[in-house]
Amino acid sequence: MKVMIMRKRYLFAPGPTSVPPEVLLELAKPVLHHREPQFLEILSQVRDGLRYLFQTSGEVIILSASGTGAMEAAVANLFSTGDRALVISGGKFGERWAEICRTYGVEAVALEVPWGEAVKPSDVADALARDASIRGVCVQVCETSTGAAHDVRALGEIVRAHPHVVLIVDAVSALGAVDVRTDEWGLDAVVGGSQKAMMLPPGLAFVAMSAKAWQRAGQTNLPRYYFDLPKIRGELVQDDHPYTLPTPLVVALRESLGYVRAEGLDRIFRRHRQLAEATRAGIKALGLSLLAEKSPSDALTVVRVPEGIDGARLPKLFQELCNITIVGGQDRLRGKVFRLAHMGYVDTFDVVTMVSAVEFVLHRLGYPLEWGAGVRAAQEVLARPID
Amino acid sequence: MKVMIMRKRYLFAPGPTSVPPEVLLELAKPVLHHREPQFLEILSQVRDGLRYLFQTSGEVIILSASGTGAMEAAVANLFSTGDRALVISGGKFGERWAEICRTYGVEAVALEVPWGEAVKPSDVADALARDASIRGVCVQVCETSTGAAHDVRALGEIVRAHPHVVLIVDAVSALGAVDVRTDEWGLDAVVGGSQKAMMLPPGLAFVAMSAKAWQRAGQTNLPRYYFDLPKIRGELVQDDHPYTLPTPLVVALRESLGYVRAEGLDRIFRRHRQLAEATRAGIKALGLSLLAEKSPSDALTVVRVPEGIDGARLPKLFQELCNITIVGGQDRLRGKVFRLAHMGYVDTFDVVTMVSAVEFVLHRLGYPLEWGAGVRAAQEVLARPID
Repeated sequence: MKVMIMRKRYLFAPGPTSVPPEVLLELAKPVLHHREPQFLEILSQVRDGLRYLFQTSGEVIILSASGTGAMEAAVANLFSTGDRALVISGGKFGERWAEICRTYGVEAVALEVPWGEAVKPSDVADALARDASIRGVCVQVCETSTGAAHDVRALGEIVRAHPHVVLIVDAVSALGAVDVRTDEWGLDAVVGGSQKAMMLPPGLAFVAMSAKAWQRAGQTNLPRYYFDLPKIRGELVQDDHPYTLPTPLVVALRESLGYVRAEGLDRIFRRHRQLAEATRAGIKALGLSLLAEKSPSDALTVVRVPEGIDGARLPKLFQELCNITIVGGQDRLRGKVFRLAHMGYVDTFDVVTMVSAVEFVLHRLGYPLEWGAGVRAAQEVLARPID
Repeated sequence: MKVMIMRKRYLFAPGPTSVPPEVLLELAKPVLHHREPQFLEILSQVRDGLRYLFQTSGEVIILSASGTGAMEAAVANLFSTGDRALVISGGKFGERWAEICRTYGVEAVALEVPWGEAVKPSDVADALARDASIRGVCVQVCETSTGAAHDVRALGEIVRAHPHVVLIVDAVSALGAVDVRTDEWGLDAVVGGSQKAMMLPPGLAFVAMSAKAWQRAGQTNLPRYYFDLPKIRGELVQDDHPYTLPTPLVVALRESLGYVRAEGLDRIFRRHRQLAEATRAGIKALGLSLLAEKSPSDALTVVRVPEGIDGARLPKLFQELCNITIVGGQDRLRGKVFRLAHMGYVDTFDVVTMVSAVEFVLHRLGYPLEWGAGVRAAQEVLARPID
């Protein structure tokens, strides 16, 4: 046991993220059975709240899984053996779509995008026009590995014109942080996870689907049992579920969805926009540059490690020096970037803390900076009223 | 909001089960990141504790899923398209093995056992001798729908003699309640779930496998991504995981595994034996009969609804009259049985309460009984020292 010292813990990683203490306390309540009346009432409220968050009138499927499980569920329900999928590949999670497709014998045609950039919607339109055999487009709202935001609204308009193509959207790190209009934008499958901007621990994943996608799911032939979405929907609409849900997380989800509803989606998106702009302003004021310069997501900011700094040391120093958990880059970005998440349960002073910590850490590494330059720039953005 | 009254809540369903308050409080702690040092240390301790619980020297794979997800993982990793599996089908969960197999194009040959009975090991030996094309045997330690215990130790001896057959064991409602010796008994895959006798809420599932099974998993061809066990093992042995684990549940698991180690498996199994024998004695003293008369599991007791009693009303009455959550029968047993679980965080007075509640509920339904007859019989068993 270490000697207790006053070092508060900060979690600024892009999932798991910080969870409001009131939501955590829900997890400590006596466990409910998944079929007792009190739980069924909560499940019903949660189903409502999820429809609000996903901006859909359809059923949002709840899974006991990580976000990857829900991505796999979307693929396994929406494709058949030998189908072709167009995969927007501009980061680790784009690549994950391709890996999942190939696992199931679905041909993944990669539309390569430089890591850190967003796909050009016209490139997707061209690819679909060129190849009539494509049955689905897989993309991220926010590519968590690079911090780039793909314009899924524009993709929705393009895919909508192709009756035999579905648009499958990984919104795991986007839902509750940035606008994702499932119904209005014609997104056929929207995948979510509990541990990002939904202000919950990991353990729940979600899939919302359009009528077009549900129809497709009734005709595909890939094997799925635990992830059989039509089967789960059939039970969920009766406030039931074929498998045992993590009941404490569902109870906590009601609480966090209550927060979402109380603040309102519009305000939530404006808040995240401001938190993101402030972080970006602070980072730039320190002379650093963003990986996703042109189309950064408002959910997280991915910062290039400056010349001469050992990128691998950065996350460790955040931990040791500041007791702040952040993450570095993955795969080809390893050691080249660090990622600051500002999604979910994040306020003005979290961003001030985050940018201040960047100053402390870089200063320790010998990076030349004027104390407070980053924080000042962030504050100037944070001072603007958003209500 | 209802008026608050002093009605304590009791959860005697066969999963989710009651969780110690100290374990629940672990869930309310600030969320850890799945790759921060503090969590990696906990994960390492959890891996050790799981090896103790599963009685294996091998790695126990941790999944963010329900028990069914882990059952699917076992099938998807241990069979190839067109393989034949012998499925012991004596209840709803036996049937689930067959459903999962068929989903993947694995031919499930059902060895039908009357619901409530255990499979005769010699029938399995005969089936394997008759059909050399069988590649795996799927069975439950405890068939939760009927309360019957299959003799997986005997099955292990039989299957061990067949180098091309693996024994796949659903121990979801058994681990932590009854003896399951993964290594010593030659069980090739043992599936567990957090929400039964492991004294945790639902949300985690587990698979332990033998060397024979790991070798098989490297050669099979069914599609699996989220459930790719060799891939997960490769990362777990380095205290990592390819997908985001529900970190609070893993932290709580360390706590509950601490309880398991403190009591010790031998004592735990003796305790469950006594709790089960007491429940059975109480039930019989009330003139009721058990569904699994000959080979009842020590994890739960499945009671036949007596003649003239409306079985569908029973669980509702337990809830309304006693604030106790129990469950009735599923599928063909609907309305015909009710199920009392005594697995995990259960003590002497839980069984006294359980049997007492049976008296209250049956009395309300007009069933003739002598007050206290069931409780007295249970107490006589519970009074015996087990240490």
